[in-house]
Amino acid sequence: MLRNVSDLLLRNGRPWSPGQPVGTADILIRDGRIEQIGAGLTAPGARAVDLEGALVLPGFVDTHCHLDKTLWGGPWVPNTGGRSLAGRIANGEGRRAELGIPDADYSAGLLETMVTGGTAYVRSHIDIDPSVGLAGVEAVRAAADRHRDRVDVELVAFPQGGLVSRPGVTDLLAAALADGVEVVGGIDPAGFDGDPAGQLDVIFGLAERFGAKIDIHLHDPGNLGAWEFDLIIERTRAAGLAGRVTISHAYAMGALPPAEQQRIAESSAEAGVAMVTCAVGDAPVVPLRVMHAAGATLALGNDGIRDLWTPYGDGDMLRRISTVAFRDRLLADEEIELALAAGTHGGAKVLGLTDYGLRPGARADLLTVQAPAPAAAVVGVPVRGLVVKGGRVVARDGRLVE
Amino acid sequence: MLRNVSDLLLRNGRPWSPGQPVGTADILIRDGRIEQIGAGLTAPGARAVDLEGALVLPGFVDTHCHLDKTLWGGPWVPNTGGRSLAGRIANGEGRRAELGIPDADYSAGLLETMVTGGTAYVRSHIDIDPSVGLAGVEAVRAAADRHRDRVDVELVAFPQGGLVSRPGVTDLLAAALADGVEVVGGIDPAGFDGDPAGQLDVIFGLAERFGAKIDIHLHDPGNLGAWEFDLIIERTRAAGLAGRVTISHAYAMGALPPAEQQRIAESSAEAGVAMVTCAVGDAPVVPLRVMHAAGATLALGNDGIRDLWTPYGDGDMLRRISTVAFRDRLLADEEIELALAAGTHGGAKVLGLTDYGLRPGARADLLTVQAPAPAAAVVGVPVRGLVVKGGRVVARDGRLVE
Repeated sequence: MLRNVSDLLLRNGRPWSPGQPVGTADILIRDGRIEQIGAGLTAPGARAVDLEGALVLPGFVDTHCHLDKTLWGGPWVPNTGGRSLAGRIANGEGRRAELGIPDADYSAGLLETMVTGGTAYVRSHIDIDPSVGLAGVEAVRAAADRHRDRVDVELVAFPQGGLVSRPGVTDLLAAALADGVEVVGGIDPAGFDGDPAGQLDVIFGLAERFGAKIDIHLHDPGNLGAWEFDLIIERTRAAGLAGRVTISHAYAMGALPPAEQQRIAESSAEAGVAMVTCAVGDAPVVPLRVMHAAGATLALGNDGIRDLWTPYGDGDMLRRISTVAFRDRLLADEEIELALAAGTHGGAKVLGLTDYGLRPGARADLLTVQAPAPAAAVVGVPVRGLVVKGGRVVARDGRLVE
Repeated sequence: MLRNVSDLLLRNGRPWSPGQPVGTADILIRDGRIEQIGAGLTAPGARAVDLEGALVLPGFVDTHCHLDKTLWGGPWVPNTGGRSLAGRIANGEGRRAELGIPDADYSAGLLETMVTGGTAYVRSHIDIDPSVGLAGVEAVRAAADRHRDRVDVELVAFPQGGLVSRPGVTDLLAAALADGVEVVGGIDPAGFDGDPAGQLDVIFGLAERFGAKIDIHLHDPGNLGAWEFDLIIERTRAAGLAGRVTISHAYAMGALPPAEQQRIAESSAEAGVAMVTCAVGDAPVVPLRVMHAAGATLALGNDGIRDLWTPYGDGDMLRRISTVAFRDRLLADEEIELALAAGTHGGAKVLGLTDYGLRPGARADLLTVQAPAPAAAVVGVPVRGLVVKGGRVVARDGRLVE
């Protein structure tokens, strides 16, 4: 048999799946998929790599970022956003032209960093408003195209500056969705947009019209946030959109009394509504143990990375997983692995991937790290040895493989 | 003139001091001290190094860690501490023998990592209780001795498992102080030890008897914590110990109403009581802007690093400074620099260093990083280029220089 360049035999790895013990195994990859996982595999003609006991993780899923906003790789831009949400939105829109964003080069540079860190899938919110129009969609699509064999990018048409409160935005979202953007976004239907029923009417209406998924930014705190969770869950049930609706940030969830957290987690699980937490600054983190116990889907993301909103962020999903675990005070190994599961399989559920994970038949999207245990990898954030996407080695030791 | 190996001319650096603009300058170091900072310096015989525009920061001060507890560099130990303070204390004491801690090798390994990260001064709490006695003092002193030219280590005799509530501990603390330990510690005089007046009587009594400084762990929340702040501040005034008393963690401070935060910060500043924040997990961070506005001293530390209490931590003070800035939601450059000031000059004040900083006459303890701005260094946590301690290059690019 002729050697197929896409065939890869990874020897002596320690593949991880959530809730499973880790043992040494070989992984045979053919035609971009995992064909077999087991001891002492042979595959004449395949390229063999000795992983020397490295831990093997499924490719990270960054379920929440803002590729269109980033200034990654550019000059240092001191933050001028101030502290109010409205002021930060105005700053974010007002300085775009001066800084030349959205910019495909910045977005592509950030995607490169994400890939070298082992991220295989990205969901990026894209600002849509009358001033920027769909320029963010174009820029990020151009950037994603440059890395099309290294990472899959899904877009959210995101009304960052308001939806029903801002004339023209509904039509722009519709135009983005008509143009193939996969997800319709929203933002604080009550606290920011001022008309929760109205905003959800528009979002769920667009989702139905275009067959789009839904992902709503929800920073509203306390009882207001909890009330909106219930509203979104109820709408999801009514629309039959189980598995296609995500609440991003869900700050209220991290600060509610335990019984209320549990009720909402169970309700989310039952209705098929996912949550995404990013552990940004001092904002409450969606409690991982509560979501896990309820069987609810929780995913993670880097949120803003070096943009007009925040000077922080590095695009590294393993570091974000570590930050979430640290913030949620996950201590025992099996607790820490919940954060790893959220940054991998949780994200895959949000994106609706059906062929994800380290198992025969799944797409060969994986990475390796030297770590004595999965929890140790989360805590130590070691450099990624190999990053494999679709069966191809795309990065090694923190650098792209051309 | 013969070349003096301790003379060093650092060319084209960008030295930083809190609240000052950063400009390019040379730094001349003689006999372990900064002799001159300015443009176009010459020093025949001195070893010249071109910093190529690197930012120069004063050596970091890790004002709060637990060198005696660490398992740094050893096998991965899954956390078994559970979630109650009492349970974590019992776990921390109960598994010492099995794991062979305190251990000078672990402590020395962690000190090495700290040094390569640019830390020049360390204050370490050392558990003192009837089971371990003063073994932690001996182990950490042995470790510090191995790195005596690379980092200065100050010890706190710390009653982790209780003071007045635990027979024999007062005498052990006295023995440690008599043996030269510089600081007497305490822990939640109300919430854990159950006798705030009693514990403070012992601590302030020992401080007076041995001329020791004071550093009290204070996790007690809300009004209880605030009441203890007032108690400690009042005792400090009465004992004339301004500048010699520190409240570590001070969790309550981060969660009080703004007016109460301001009152306590001003009161701390007036009485010469410092606070230390470590931004551990989800615990409230002492608000940096409030402390700065009041002129109060705030310092930072890594707290526990890979020990029976926490699986987290890497000993890198720049990353801790970054975490504190992120958690306290410092956004503008001048805000982010407050965290840098806390991790350097704030710590120096807590330790009582009088010859600290980047100025003529100060000890030449500094480090370099490639970063376009001080805030960018905090956000990006770049590798430390040169680390200089007492005028000698002790580490370069993340490795010790032997």
